Amino acid sequence: MKAITVNPPLNGFEYRDVDIEEKGTRIRILENGICGTDREIVNGQLSSAVPPSGYGFMALGHEAIGEVLEDSGPFRKGDIVMPVNRRGCGKCLNCLLGRPDFCETGDFIEAGIKGMHGFMRQYIRDSPEYLVLVPPDIRDIAILAQPLSDLEKSLEEILSVQGRLYWKCSDGTYGCRHALVVGTGAIGILFALLLRSRGFSVTISNVRDATGLEATIFSEAGIAFFNSSLGYAGLKPNDKFDLIVEASGSDASLIPSLLSLLKNNAVLGLFGFSRSGMANLTSIDLQNIVYKSISVVGLINGQKPHFEAAMRDLVQWKHMWPEVSRSLITREIDVNSISGMSEVMYRKMPGEIKTKIVW
Amino acid sequence: MKAITVNPPLNGFEYRDVDIEEKGTRIRILENGICGTDREIVNGQLSSAVPPSGYGFMALGHEAIGEVLEDSGPFRKGDIVMPVNRRGCGKCLNCLLGRPDFCETGDFIEAGIKGMHGFMRQYIRDSPEYLVLVPPDIRDIAILAQPLSDLEKSLEEILSVQGRLYWKCSDGTYGCRHALVVGTGAIGILFALLLRSRGFSVTISNVRDATGLEATIFSEAGIAFFNSSLGYAGLKPNDKFDLIVEASGSDASLIPSLLSLLKNNAVLGLFGFSRSGMANLTSIDLQNIVYKSISVVGLINGQKPHFEAAMRDLVQWKHMWPEVSRSLITREIDVNSISGMSEVMYRKMPGEIKTKIVW
Amino acid sequence: MKAITVNPPLNGFEYRDVDIEEKGTRIRILENGICGTDREIVNGQLSSAVPPSGYGFMALGHEAIGEVLEDSGPFRKGDIVMPVNRRGCGKCLNCLLGRPDFCETGDFIEAGIKGMHGFMRQYIRDSPEYLVLVPPDIRDIAILAQPLSDLEKSLEEILSVQGRLYWKCSDGTYGCRHALVVGTGAIGILFALLLRSRGFSVTISNVRDATGLEATIFSEAGIAFFNSSLGYAGLKPNDKFDLIVEASGSDASLIPSLLSLLKNNAVLGLFGFSRSGMANLTSIDLQNIVYKSISVVGLINGQKPHFEAAMRDLVQWKHMWPEVSRSLITREIDVNSISGMSEVMYRKMPGEIKTKIVW
Amino acid sequence: MKAITVNPPLNGFEYRDVDIEEKGTRIRILENGICGTDREIVNGQLSSAVPPSGYGFMALGHEAIGEVLEDSGPFRKGDIVMPVNRRGCGKCLNCLLGRPDFCETGDFIEAGIKGMHGFMRQYIRDSPEYLVLVPPDIRDIAILAQPLSDLEKSLEEILSVQGRLYWKCSDGTYGCRHALVVGTGAIGILFALLLRSRGFSVTISNVRDATGLEATIFSEAGIAFFNSSLGYAGLKPNDKFDLIVEASGSDASLIPSLLSLLKNNAVLGLFGFSRSGMANLTSIDLQNIVYKSISVVGLINGQKPHFEAAMRDLVQWKHMWPEVSRSLITREIDVNSISGMSEVMYRKMPGEIKTKIVW
Repeated sequence: MKAITVNPPLNGFEYRDVDIEEKGTRIRILENGICGTDREIVNGQLSSAVPPSGYGFMALGHEAIGEVLEDSGPFRKGDIVMPVNRRGCGKCLNCLLGRPDFCETGDFIEAGIKGMHGFMRQYIRDSPEYLVLVPPDIRDIAILAQPLSDLEKSLEEILSVQGRLYWKCSDGTYGCRHALVVGTGAIGILFALLLRSRGFSVTISNVRDATGLEATIFSEAGIAFFNSSLGYAGLKPNDKFDLIVEASGSDASLIPSLLSLLKNNAVLGLFGFSRSGMANLTSIDLQNIVYKSISVVGLINGQKPHFEAAMRDLVQWKHMWPEVSRSLITREIDVNSISGMSEVMYRKMPGEIKTKIVW
Repeated sequence: MKAITVNPPLNGFEYRDVDIEEKGTRIRILENGICGTDREIVNGQLSSAVPPSGYGFMALGHEAIGEVLEDSGPFRKGDIVMPVNRRGCGKCLNCLLGRPDFCETGDFIEAGIKGMHGFMRQYIRDSPEYLVLVPPDIRDIAILAQPLSDLEKSLEEILSVQGRLYWKCSDGTYGCRHALVVGTGAIGILFALLLRSRGFSVTISNVRDATGLEATIFSEAGIAFFNSSLGYAGLKPNDKFDLIVEASGSDASLIPSLLSLLKNNAVLGLFGFSRSGMANLTSIDLQNIVYKSISVVGLINGQKPHFEAAMRDLVQWKHMWPEVSRSLITREIDVNSISGMSEVMYRKMPGEIKTKIVW
Repeated sequence: MKAITVNPPLNGFEYRDVDIEEKGTRIRILENGICGTDREIVNGQLSSAVPPSGYGFMALGHEAIGEVLEDSGPFRKGDIVMPVNRRGCGKCLNCLLGRPDFCETGDFIEAGIKGMHGFMRQYIRDSPEYLVLVPPDIRDIAILAQPLSDLEKSLEEILSVQGRLYWKCSDGTYGCRHALVVGTGAIGILFALLLRSRGFSVTISNVRDATGLEATIFSEAGIAFFNSSLGYAGLKPNDKFDLIVEASGSDASLIPSLLSLLKNNAVLGLFGFSRSGMANLTSIDLQNIVYKSISVVGLINGQKPHFEAAMRDLVQWKHMWPEVSRSLITREIDVNSISGMSEVMYRKMPGEIKTKIVW
Repeated sequence: MKAITVNPPLNGFEYRDVDIEEKGTRIRILENGICGTDREIVNGQLSSAVPPSGYGFMALGHEAIGEVLEDSGPFRKGDIVMPVNRRGCGKCLNCLLGRPDFCETGDFIEAGIKGMHGFMRQYIRDSPEYLVLVPPDIRDIAILAQPLSDLEKSLEEILSVQGRLYWKCSDGTYGCRHALVVGTGAIGILFALLLRSRGFSVTISNVRDATGLEATIFSEAGIAFFNSSLGYAGLKPNDKFDLIVEASGSDASLIPSLLSLLKNNAVLGLFGFSRSGMANLTSIDLQNIVYKSISVVGLINGQKPHFEAAMRDLVQWKHMWPEVSRSLITREIDVNSISGMSEVMYRKMPGEIKTKIVW
């Protein structure tokens, strides 16, 4: 079958015939999403990328939907499904509980990233245990469920962390809580939407003005936008936050200014991977973490329950925020288009939110 | 009555007669503990210290036990009690729930520190709501319950934060979890003891060898000691930690090396107040927080339930670790001893764990 | 204005002009739902029904949607909203936290039921704090959000209770958990749908065959139906349940047989109000509760966060289960139709799921 | 070696030589406790009692302390330890998490009760994983840790169940919560002490007056006693409870009156095994469970973390309540005393709290 393959740590990718031995339910891949991690691998920048043992290549791709080709377990022929991308180490308790997002050994494998072939290929075989049903209503945007699953998990984790105190409001909701999402990539926008749909007041920022498409999205979903090119000093003096999610992978030097924007008992969630710079925290910054009971939490990887929640949310958003939903997939590329694929696989295009590959 | 008073931001302290208007149950103070915060105030270094409104001075002291002078609420004349030191803002939900440790407004008051007279005086009056009964069995070491209450709260918060994953071991205990406590002051030692008594495997470190007294304590309680004067590289290569508690207030530059000692899903709890230096985190440090699902949590202030837990633990420790318990109070000073008081109020003595003032 | 009024403990209802003094945002009522509690009041059978003080009547109705007539707080003129029906006692902690569903004093008030005028009238005034936005997409079925809010709270409570053990499955979801919902009224069907949408395997039962409409609903949503007219012995021998929700208000004598269907660690949730019969539990029944770590939980009343969740779920269900959504409102009645109103206010019609009154 | 053996379902017991093949650390048994379950087996009344496969007898006993005979794992020769009595099924998630108290399959085994030899014998071998260290300070009362472990788990479970609402008081403690413990056997008294030590206000009841010994215990620990021989009508009209623990195994007919004593949001915990009677609940009783958000929870079996907690509490109680601790072991019997053993193994003696067998 055809596949998009990589050979880390080498850069580049190929579209070629491959032989992969697998067991499980046969699935014909329909679409893949491309994300920053894919591009890091293609650019030879992700040192943790490792092909599966016994192979001299790795099929890329951890965002996919496909069509089930045979009745199997709870699935019927013709069902559209999404495979979960991280699989457990088989040893630690969290992996036994279906939660390799909290793998203790680090020996988990991850499709298209570490020790497991990815989903950018014509067919995969997989166990029903790792497949999540796609509601037909969101066939067009379901590819977003994989990145969204990471955020469902992240928000679940944040709310769990905040169980350390009483963090709801006097009406029992989160309506009084103000969140800042840093970054307007796919992750930033999806995280902002998720927080809005859970009732948070949300501001999203980038170091430039919002594009027209972004403005449409933020307006419909009731999200405030802030241009932070001159820093956050321009926010109203009392505009501090109960939650900040770093979703931009900005230079690490951003962190101290984000810490200074936090209210008492707030959370700084780190989702983006800073690739440059230093976060130079003064002793006063550290004292403030203590005095203000602040928590900083690393956020990574959703699992099956989070994929299920992502599907539910996408259905809801599609109809609650129709403009938003129409705006999130900014480009579709035919996998056979050599020039198109070369264009999208190496770097994010201006205005891109999510690019998907169609088989 | 006589009181130890301060007048922040001025440095120094006085032992003098004062008039303080209060309501509530009459209590004769028996003992006070001295901690680093008291000394910062006496040295004019705690910028957040503020006398109660309407007074040109503030009685110092937030660690005290006293004798109830009249039947009142659940207390009988002659009972020994400890007053809780932080009081709520009366506005936010967490303060209404008796948890000003998570005050949202920052308008809480704190005995001997901020907006409320402290307990270093002959008498106080207080509401039974803020008093905690001292079991007679621990009359001698009960003064430790105030600092310990902060740690009871801290551990409760850490366990709550770790509710984000499955953090117990395959036997349902915390026996497989390895904690590092940085610092062998009163806080460091009490935190290490608390973690031991909850079943954690515990290492404690200082930048020098353990004193003889410390060695006795660590040996009886089964705590490992590590001299980190040359950094932590000397730890066994795989000796990483599920929990690190910074309890030394070391130079901030210590933080990056602590982060590098954390296992997947670990917690770095910040209790000590760094007064100097910079924590310069690289982008790799930040990435590790994400990849390893690490949480950094500011830890501060225990409330009434934590004082109650501290009393229970002190009773238990006294008899489980008799040497430990005999070793924790390293000096008693008569409040009338001018030279003695001058000696203990300004700085920590070599070998000091807890110094108490006796009325 | 016109209103449907009652005068408990008298039976009957009137459609008449009333004067009600209220403060807050003006809202024009569009629709009301009718539920079993309304009918109990109209039939003079709800002894706890009490008019608001100072009035010789009570406007009925606790299920309503209306149009906001003026900009107010987060709402704009023209928004469709649903008012929350229970309001706190103003005294206990749970009411201060926006959770009068867990009122400790019992002094809460409840629209159209106890001490507060209901929503079956042309206009209400209310504080934005108690209003929940209705997404335009579900304008047609939004009246279901009030009963559904009770179930959102119930499921949240059940999952919280089950936090006593590890109750998820080896894939991190609830997919291995089997629930039985007893009763196919509006509550039973909505509860079954809610459990399905959260991934549970669900069986629903009634003491007759499913109607054609019910069969359509259960088929689309993947819910099994069981006719329990001859008891539950006909279930497969090993078909026991992790969760049973009594949503029928059946004769109390049903309870022992439900208990016998529970697996280890299971929950029996009581939502329906039994009006007759006795639940005669043997000592063996009680022993089984102990040996099997069973929990029985009374389930009542959702609050604002649950109304918000209900709105999200209704949007999702409408598009995931379009047949289901079209089937749930079985009758609309014009409030001016004297004969129609007489027909629907006193008793449930055969085949009724939810009847709504249109203003 | 010598052992006390049974052969269920036959009644009677023998003191005789046995050969038992086991692996693990060698332990010399010092003491056993006797409880109601042991006596049921000896009287041939526990239908669930089953010898280990391949043996025509079963060593009795699930309460034991012993001396470690060789260094092993965390234990040193000479350490006193208590073995955990229930062991997992090896299949379900809760057993893999070290929590066979919530075994899903029911295939757990239990020392001296079901499929595993008990501890009433000269020696056992066991894995350090199932051994809990006994602090030397409580060598005399440590046998109580096994029954207490069940209660530690029970209280943990009750507090977890009550996480469904805000159940603490306005000072953050449980001081405003009023508990009733039914029964003054070992379990009832230990449960009452545990609740007291956690700050609850506690009433304990029996259908007779308190014995002198009981009166001493209740007085020192601040527990109120109520003689319920004429029912609970004699309690003050407003004396309702937030928590009732049935620890008497009374006739099931007691249950309806206990339910009527519960406040809103209360818990009825069932620990004792009713052996007779019927709990005849009216539909009004069931309605009250719903209206008042009551939870009924079956409480059984503590695991290793609960044994550890029990050890800590026993140390604390010994010194906080010295009279109590001296009163709990009401009889010691030499295992070689034929007449003595016959007396204690079949029935509870008047005034007995805990009888222990000494080897």
